[in-house]
Amino acid sequence: MQIRVSDLAKELGCSYVGEGSLLIKGAAPIEKAGPGDLTFLSNVKYKKFVQSTRASAIVAPPGIEREGLTVIISDDPYYTFARALWILYPREKLDPFISPLASVSDDASVSDEAVVMDFVRIGEGAVVERGAVLYPGVYIGKGVTVGEDSILYPNVVVYDGCRIGKRVIIHSGAVIGSDGFGFAPHGGKFFKIPQVGTVVIEDDVEIGAGTTIDRAALGETRIGEGTKIDNLVQVAHNVEIGKHTVIASQTGISGSVKVGDHVMMGGQVGVAGHLTIDSGIMIGAKSGVPSSLSAEKSRVWSGIPAIPHRRWLRLAKVMEEIPDLLKRVRELERVVGELKKERGSREDGED
Amino acid sequence: MQIRVSDLAKELGCSYVGEGSLLIKGAAPIEKAGPGDLTFLSNVKYKKFVQSTRASAIVAPPGIEREGLTVIISDDPYYTFARALWILYPREKLDPFISPLASVSDDASVSDEAVVMDFVRIGEGAVVERGAVLYPGVYIGKGVTVGEDSILYPNVVVYDGCRIGKRVIIHSGAVIGSDGFGFAPHGGKFFKIPQVGTVVIEDDVEIGAGTTIDRAALGETRIGEGTKIDNLVQVAHNVEIGKHTVIASQTGISGSVKVGDHVMMGGQVGVAGHLTIDSGIMIGAKSGVPSSLSAEKSRVWSGIPAIPHRRWLRLAKVMEEIPDLLKRVRELERVVGELKKERGSREDGED
Amino acid sequence: MQIRVSDLAKELGCSYVGEGSLLIKGAAPIEKAGPGDLTFLSNVKYKKFVQSTRASAIVAPPGIEREGLTVIISDDPYYTFARALWILYPREKLDPFISPLASVSDDASVSDEAVVMDFVRIGEGAVVERGAVLYPGVYIGKGVTVGEDSILYPNVVVYDGCRIGKRVIIHSGAVIGSDGFGFAPHGGKFFKIPQVGTVVIEDDVEIGAGTTIDRAALGETRIGEGTKIDNLVQVAHNVEIGKHTVIASQTGISGSVKVGDHVMMGGQVGVAGHLTIDSGIMIGAKSGVPSSLSAEKSRVWSGIPAIPHRRWLRLAKVMEEIPDLLKRVRELERVVGELKKERGSREDGED
Repeated sequence: MQIRVSDLAKELGCSYVGEGSLLIKGAAPIEKAGPGDLTFLSNVKYKKFVQSTRASAIVAPPGIEREGLTVIISDDPYYTFARALWILYPREKLDPFISPLASVSDDASVSDEAVVMDFVRIGEGAVVERGAVLYPGVYIGKGVTVGEDSILYPNVVVYDGCRIGKRVIIHSGAVIGSDGFGFAPHGGKFFKIPQVGTVVIEDDVEIGAGTTIDRAALGETRIGEGTKIDNLVQVAHNVEIGKHTVIASQTGISGSVKVGDHVMMGGQVGVAGHLTIDSGIMIGAKSGVPSSLSAEKSRVWSGIPAIPHRRWLRLAKVMEEIPDLLKRVRELERVVGELKKERGSREDGED
Repeated sequence: MQIRVSDLAKELGCSYVGEGSLLIKGAAPIEKAGPGDLTFLSNVKYKKFVQSTRASAIVAPPGIEREGLTVIISDDPYYTFARALWILYPREKLDPFISPLASVSDDASVSDEAVVMDFVRIGEGAVVERGAVLYPGVYIGKGVTVGEDSILYPNVVVYDGCRIGKRVIIHSGAVIGSDGFGFAPHGGKFFKIPQVGTVVIEDDVEIGAGTTIDRAALGETRIGEGTKIDNLVQVAHNVEIGKHTVIASQTGISGSVKVGDHVMMGGQVGVAGHLTIDSGIMIGAKSGVPSSLSAEKSRVWSGIPAIPHRRWLRLAKVMEEIPDLLKRVRELERVVGELKKERGSREDGED
Repeated sequence: MQIRVSDLAKELGCSYVGEGSLLIKGAAPIEKAGPGDLTFLSNVKYKKFVQSTRASAIVAPPGIEREGLTVIISDDPYYTFARALWILYPREKLDPFISPLASVSDDASVSDEAVVMDFVRIGEGAVVERGAVLYPGVYIGKGVTVGEDSILYPNVVVYDGCRIGKRVIIHSGAVIGSDGFGFAPHGGKFFKIPQVGTVVIEDDVEIGAGTTIDRAALGETRIGEGTKIDNLVQVAHNVEIGKHTVIASQTGISGSVKVGDHVMMGGQVGVAGHLTIDSGIMIGAKSGVPSSLSAEKSRVWSGIPAIPHRRWLRLAKVMEEIPDLLKRVRELERVVGELKKERGSREDGED
């Protein structure tokens, strides 16, 4: 959609400097934007592009000016730009609809204001609240709740009894509520422990494509409000993740781990079972976490095994020198050995 | 369901001490259990909770007693507790049923005692044995066999010609029999090598959500009896995994690897192609295995590259000291250099 | 299918030495092949098997001969063998067909020569070209294009607006065009940045089972012609991958990374955001890449963090010695300390 700078600024609650009647037709990063585009300046690293950008308008902090560039002023330009994007590219509004090609249990309760597309199955006792959108191929098990305005993309699976909050987004192929990985060894075999708990996804959570969240053995696996999980992440049974935590792709969290609020995990991190990750902790990509992480000890952790990030940086910097170090120590041993021998003979001579 | 301690103990083949008429209504870990709950004591670490637990009954080894706590006695309490869970939380019994919304080839053979739910496709020549349960969205390719009492959760895909044994459980989103990753480089391009082998899943295997098991190029990819594979695991073409092996989440096993029986792999392990992992080997989480692992050399392996676990523990313990070590060696070199110089001048003086 | 050696050689454009009337019925690796099988010799490591193989015929470079073994001569035996496999095991030819159990938007354009199986949904404005095959449960979003002869296996999801080229193969459970992982932090919460770009998959790409390729925030995520991606790989938003690049399983590529042509990445590699990987680079399995890789500096990289491969090999070789090294340095410090002390007292004595 197209919008005048003056109208856009008004919707965003911002003032602007420049041409209010300019028509904004799209958005792009500062170095790629062209005429008709809105862009933004958030990171000072990109300040140099203010002079050269071909964008028509920019969301920028106070003090940014350039001849011919209209500036929408914001103290938090990235957030303001994100809001502007929702105005420029609004989410498609779907009319409430239950496809005749869906299979909805007579015993389920589906709001008249929900969208249920083709080949969706909704099991007995399930509740789908108003504004919820279930794309084709979604499976909603028995007794599942899907809260208001939640979106489940094609082929998402929610096993029996799990609860999905409001405004939750779950991307294709994600699986919620599969059995936890629990077996009792007995006589050289593994006996399956029934996984009879559930999964609770709180409001405003987003879950990436292909991510798997196992149901608890007993009790709940829980993802806290506002937490964002990327693609292909594994969340094992009985894990509890706090609020507004961010977990990047391909990270794995073992059973019964407790992750606090506002934690940030990079990609491909692994966290061993039964640990606690304090609120506010950041874990660098590809780290292996073998024991609980205390925010008092360090806010940022990295490495395999994970150590305070600064120490990891020091270590990573010198790792390459280890083979040479070995040689140097060998040389030192040779020289010191000679010196000792000479001392020995000198002492002998002194005797 | 609810059951009296006396009846439960009888079904489990155990004796008990305490109140046989107590009604058990649920189960919980020892520190969380309340009245009406059964709990268990397996790990001595939790013995301290025996005094404080609010559980009504406990499965415990001989010798555990407490006033007011009924004890079901077992030499293998974790296994006995797991069996008790199946009694307390029996798997839902589904009546045989073939949904009119499924698409079953005229040429397929589906038992009258199987369950085939909505939107399932069963291809030509496929066989689905009695007791098998195919949840919505499952795809069964041509010529596939699904053995007795196997459960395929929603949206599982089994490509043409693969064979699934009896009592196999496959969780949502798992893919069995996709093409192996094989290409012949030619003229700067990659020419696809047809993957015309198959996958065989033996009896009593469990496969986690989102796990992918590629078909062999020629021959078979095989998962041995009783083996348990967690979520998001990659098993490449022509891999052979033995019996009663356990593989945790996000581990990847490259082409043509042979894994023995009773192997245990932690999460996020990577195994390079064409290796052999001996029976009984354990591999720590996040390890990278570049060469075959011999049980004679070590039972437990860890690290990148994987080394015997004890050595890895020693290494992990001192890694952080490496930057300081470099400084210390530099200081030694300085001091030893001075000593050498002095020796030189002393020798000069002696001349 | 069965074919005479003379006919096979002719189709392959190769000469042969031996029995042209021999009937080839299958194919197998050199050490497993039996009578009626074709095999190949590509790697000199396997040359020893030429004497013992029970295969009827072999594709081999010039100069390989053995009594009773028919040889099809090729300068590129692996590639020629791969072509022979396509002759022996031709891909099943499916008749054009649109299942009455599919849901095709009136507004979509589906070729009469395409195959659309049960429970496929094709959205408004989508185009499916001739020869394309959509297996059951595939979801084709609005405005998506699927090019000629492309194959999408069961339960593949292509979100709105993505473009799939010709002769592309996408395996089950792969997700194309899910939202990139982008949020603006604001007031202790994460505000979703609309992901309004798209994904372009060029011709002759293959994408593995369970792989996820996120749509761009703005602009395109692009996979170049002929590139092959294995299972469970994560490709984040705005990534650009060049032509004829190969990426093994469980690798993750963060947002806005540019990967060149003819790059090869091992399994479980992680690449941090906004980097450039030069054309021709190889990255060893399980490497962590924190900064751009220049082909001038090294063609092959490995390790966490990734360093030139030769240096990584040197490092990996000595890592185990680090704990001993510490002891040796401690011993050196002790001895050098003594030597210094003696020097001190000697100097005192000299005074």
